[in-house]
Amino acid sequence: MAKNLTPLVVVAVALVDAQGHVLMQQRPEGTMHAGLWEFPGGKVDPGESAEQAAVREMEEELAVGLDSSSLVPVGFASGLLGEGGGGASGRRALVLLLYATRAWEGTPVSQEGGQAQWYAPQGLGELAMPPLDYPLADALKIWLNHDSSEEYADRC
Amino acid sequence: MAKNLTPLVVVAVALVDAQGHVLMQQRPEGTMHAGLWEFPGGKVDPGESAEQAAVREMEEELAVGLDSSSLVPVGFASGLLGEGGGGASGRRALVLLLYATRAWEGTPVSQEGGQAQWYAPQGLGELAMPPLDYPLADALKIWLNHDSSEEYADRC
Repeated sequence: MAKNLTPLVVVAVALVDAQGHVLMQQRPEGTMHAGLWEFPGGKVDPGESAEQAAVREMEEELAVGLDSSSLVPVGFASGLLGEGGGGASGRRALVLLLYATRAWEGTPVSQEGGQAQWYAPQGLGELAMPPLDYPLADALKIWLNHDSSEEYADRC
Repeated sequence: MAKNLTPLVVVAVALVDAQGHVLMQQRPEGTMHAGLWEFPGGKVDPGESAEQAAVREMEEELAVGLDSSSLVPVGFASGLLGEGGGGASGRRALVLLLYATRAWEGTPVSQEGGQAQWYAPQGLGELAMPPLDYPLADALKIWLNHDSSEEYADRC
């Protein structure tokens, strides 16, 4: 039934503050994965680029302004839509892209009923997250390590 | 005209051999980006998952057999279809996903007219590649570094 659909592409953004903490958002009641913590974001609409979708979603979900040129692709996860784990065939493919940024305008405030909170990257693995957010959190940790090792390379 | 299309999702695979070399494929004459070197792959067909597409493309392009469970998401790049650099609006969004694997069956032989060749990761940046393959090569280098530092963590 969903066999002829192309993959659904969802973008998420890790806002990384000056202390290296990351903003996670709790899914509101009444939604799929309610109560779980995720990287904020949403699906790419037809006619949009992935970066445009990321900028729009941050404005809609957290009321922050982003410049798309500040977005760094960090990693992705893929699965099937609505999948908790096993691999049912015939479902629509889902691709979740994670960007990171250290630059935005405004103070992020959750606009859609869930709460938003800052976490140290090391603590992300202990949060209850939707399945595809775990590999994204791992990718973010690798990227943050690499990013800070580049920044501090002279000091070692 | 292309405004109402959802993003085109293309998957690519870095086959990494025991020496840590990576297989790159040269685009055949008469295709877009002819002569440039890229990570082998192709687009995700409707009804397919990204991993299924990666397995199918490696079979079709290089006649190697992959197990989708061996595929590790490494990074992604996004742009507009047919874009060389600037940002024309109204074009279709393109998302290019890179997986890596160290396990496959068979010897990769290019099936579609281009040649395939192994390169050390440090040499990838010097190859002439389509624009979106450069950030993928960077992501691969970060991943290979991380992967080998995990593997050799005890020795340091």
